[in-house]
Amino acid sequence: MELKTAPSVAKRLGLLLGLVWVFGTLAASSLHHLPPQAEPWLQQLEEEERPLSEAPSGSLWPLPRSLCISPSRLQLAQSRFQIVHGPGSTAGPGCSLLQDAFRRYYEYLFGYTKWQNHDRKPLITSADSECDKYPALTSDEAYQLSIAESAAVLKAEKVWGALRGLETFSQLVYEDDYGSFLINESEITDYPRFAHRGILIDTSRHYLPLKSILTNLDAMAFNKFNVLHWHIVDDQSFPYQSVTFPELSNKGAYTYNHIYTPTDVQLVIEYARLRGIRVIPEFDTPGNTESWGKGQKDLLTTCYNGKQPSGSYGPVNPILNTTYEFVAEFFKEISTVFPDAYIHFGGDEVDFTCWRSNPDVQDFMKKQGFGFDYTKLESYYIKEVLETVSSLNKRSMVWQEVFDNGVKIKPDTIVEVWMGHLYPSELSRVTKAGYTTVLAAPWYLDYISYGQDWKKYYSVEPLDFLGCEMQKKLVVGGEACLWGEFVDATNLTPRLWPRASAVGERLWSSENVTNIKDAYNRLAKHRCRMLG
Amino acid sequence: MELKTAPSVAKRLGLLLGLVWVFGTLAASSLHHLPPQAEPWLQQLEEEERPLSEAPSGSLWPLPRSLCISPSRLQLAQSRFQIVHGPGSTAGPGCSLLQDAFRRYYEYLFGYTKWQNHDRKPLITSADSECDKYPALTSDEAYQLSIAESAAVLKAEKVWGALRGLETFSQLVYEDDYGSFLINESEITDYPRFAHRGILIDTSRHYLPLKSILTNLDAMAFNKFNVLHWHIVDDQSFPYQSVTFPELSNKGAYTYNHIYTPTDVQLVIEYARLRGIRVIPEFDTPGNTESWGKGQKDLLTTCYNGKQPSGSYGPVNPILNTTYEFVAEFFKEISTVFPDAYIHFGGDEVDFTCWRSNPDVQDFMKKQGFGFDYTKLESYYIKEVLETVSSLNKRSMVWQEVFDNGVKIKPDTIVEVWMGHLYPSELSRVTKAGYTTVLAAPWYLDYISYGQDWKKYYSVEPLDFLGCEMQKKLVVGGEACLWGEFVDATNLTPRLWPRASAVGERLWSSENVTNIKDAYNRLAKHRCRMLG
Repeated sequence: MELKTAPSVAKRLGLLLGLVWVFGTLAASSLHHLPPQAEPWLQQLEEEERPLSEAPSGSLWPLPRSLCISPSRLQLAQSRFQIVHGPGSTAGPGCSLLQDAFRRYYEYLFGYTKWQNHDRKPLITSADSECDKYPALTSDEAYQLSIAESAAVLKAEKVWGALRGLETFSQLVYEDDYGSFLINESEITDYPRFAHRGILIDTSRHYLPLKSILTNLDAMAFNKFNVLHWHIVDDQSFPYQSVTFPELSNKGAYTYNHIYTPTDVQLVIEYARLRGIRVIPEFDTPGNTESWGKGQKDLLTTCYNGKQPSGSYGPVNPILNTTYEFVAEFFKEISTVFPDAYIHFGGDEVDFTCWRSNPDVQDFMKKQGFGFDYTKLESYYIKEVLETVSSLNKRSMVWQEVFDNGVKIKPDTIVEVWMGHLYPSELSRVTKAGYTTVLAAPWYLDYISYGQDWKKYYSVEPLDFLGCEMQKKLVVGGEACLWGEFVDATNLTPRLWPRASAVGERLWSSENVTNIKDAYNRLAKHRCRMLG
Repeated sequence: MELKTAPSVAKRLGLLLGLVWVFGTLAASSLHHLPPQAEPWLQQLEEEERPLSEAPSGSLWPLPRSLCISPSRLQLAQSRFQIVHGPGSTAGPGCSLLQDAFRRYYEYLFGYTKWQNHDRKPLITSADSECDKYPALTSDEAYQLSIAESAAVLKAEKVWGALRGLETFSQLVYEDDYGSFLINESEITDYPRFAHRGILIDTSRHYLPLKSILTNLDAMAFNKFNVLHWHIVDDQSFPYQSVTFPELSNKGAYTYNHIYTPTDVQLVIEYARLRGIRVIPEFDTPGNTESWGKGQKDLLTTCYNGKQPSGSYGPVNPILNTTYEFVAEFFKEISTVFPDAYIHFGGDEVDFTCWRSNPDVQDFMKKQGFGFDYTKLESYYIKEVLETVSSLNKRSMVWQEVFDNGVKIKPDTIVEVWMGHLYPSELSRVTKAGYTTVLAAPWYLDYISYGQDWKKYYSVEPLDFLGCEMQKKLVVGGEACLWGEFVDATNLTPRLWPRASAVGERLWSSENVTNIKDAYNRLAKHRCRMLG
């Protein structure tokens, strides 16, 4: 897809209007123009006045679905620039999410000291804008942006679209060599290709300070990602501080200080919400749970060496009632703490060696008629967990093994495909069985190599697998995963960005946006903007 | 090599002495003990008083040549702690290099707000300590450190050894769970295995802000590196601001702002000197010089397409007198700006295509009787450059191609071996021909891969090549190279450290320090200390 350029409009010095944010149906004609002001915040540039600078039309990332940028440039008067709600808007100044976003994007554009908070009283509020809600898989992120001499208007049905549009608007503004802020006349219609666009961070292998997580949420917003997949605990440590089971982090975190308190977690969730980002926590069981065992007695399976306990522990013990009582209570808390409709239950990489060694587990297998097929035991456990969870009115995300091992899962479960080997076939199988899926396999960004590997990530086409249209529709998105074996606060940002930006555009922009050279040019500028 | 532990000394609460820094021959017995003070800065801990914390004896990096650490712990009284010169010292408080180091290491230990500058007048000064000199290839970096109940003394012949000893001392101090600063009784004798222990940074592919370079010098000091190989210009940009030829950076730098002014360069050199680090600039010619051509007319060879100039330029034009006039003047400036005895002249990766295409060059080849052997033309050029330089009273470092192509080089030239393929054979050849050499080939740290690649760097044995003892002695050291294609201020530190630490220990510690597991344990703690 190429940038389209409109024919140059007539040059004249006109009075321009305030930037108006209109909420309502896109088809509505309630667009209100502010009356002309004595001192316009935006004015047409005489082409003669200034040497032609490079417009940033070629720096948009991810590329909008449809755009038309005119060479005609307008100049922003920073001192008079305001972002205001249109009178027809269903969300007014009472919408703190948008007020926060207005301030944030003003600061991105002009620096943080200059924003004046007008502390206006709410004019219009409406539940329709979803201002006080959490983003969801079904959230509407569409927006229309129109920058013209006569009006600069952002239209979006919901606040989520307004956030995406503000990001695009900020990418359109550029400074010339004289320090003037310019923007080209433009028309943009935009909406995401996939609804689930995630970044996985891993806070168990290495603890990530809160600041790193928040910085990462900012970077995600710059790239229109909308899901933080928070792989919060694992074998190595249990930093999540549970109110119901405080011993889990007391014993299982690296130190008393390497934890996420309930306040920390709320802060992450709200910071994400204000950027239109969902937080899906992952509490992976029954494998990858070594750290859980330290603070929860009898949760893990005792491994045996012949007839004697070996002193080490395996996956969660699936044969005890106490296990399921714990699971029920623990996930009851999780479902309250995390507002998202989905919880990720993991279910990957279960090693059967320890279960096989344990005589009680062997007895249980016999009684249940599982023979020697330990995938059946795993399925038994996961089925119990998922049933527990569905009573909590939450939906499940799971790693692909849960599907591969034939666990009965509810139709609304999202299966995440992560195994790099032949992932298109797995997508075929999962969607053929009617399950919704999220693709992570080609985007394991913790695997590094020399050179511009972003091109490899960029060139992935998620729907390039055998299957009918109905199957393709079940692919709701993808995730760039940065596992934490070799990642902590010292290298998180430079390792993840801008490499993950490649995934961001793949998941947002049209299927035919595949020109690597054009992407390179835009990405280079986008990176500079992210640094700035 | 294992850490040796001395038998526990008798526990008692004794009066301890100030930390005394003695300069003089190591054999001298001029060691002066401060008289006992009413309030000792160091006191023996009753083992009963405190739970045993993990001593950092296992965190020293690089490992000293000989060490003996007792389990007996001493406690530092931060408020009374002072670093003072011994009366027998040949360098006194007038040595600003040491005063600066004392303050710096005090801050590393206790935080920067607490150091009180005593502004003492010089007591003793002596040229012998090399306090006001620059470090050199032949600098003495040996030191002895003795921490005992009765005295804590650092002995070093020269300030360079004192700097290394201060680093080791700071690595020996640790905090217990109660916030007390502890140190174990210890005896350390230490000196480097190789005299040239370098880090190559590349400020041409990406500009590195001054702050990044200084931060890197700090990290180098933490790892006892002593050479900053500053690959300052290359094809991509010419950030060095020359006083004689200001157009080189005016035209050749990325922007007017992406340059190193004379003041910047002096700042880097002095910051390095204060840490016992040499700065060897590299001005690579005749290849890798595209950026030079922008500000220096006729310096580069005009490439031809058949009988017409193609519009592009090749390596430096070796057939013009003006070239050698430029070279003479330019390197005259460089030899004044950079105090080190060595200048690196590059000489790698010369592409002959352009020279071959140019009819004037072809004529010159004929006249000189070079036939079609363009390595002879390259040799002709480099010989001229090196002769120019030797008149400036500087020595040369060059990349291996200069040797490989048979250029007549002076016996005191250092040949840097960088080609990964069969580098041990190259070391054999270079040293057999009697040249001093520095090894870089196995330590190209810009090549990244997944996992703990530091082990690969650590396992290199630089002297593992065919050659007699005399040849081995010609290997004066090595360099970890971080070329800048994918490196800038955003990732320089996490990409280079602690991976380069592996090279640091290989070049400092004894040949038999090769236990990867022990290295892992120490390096993990060393990394935390570097972050702290």
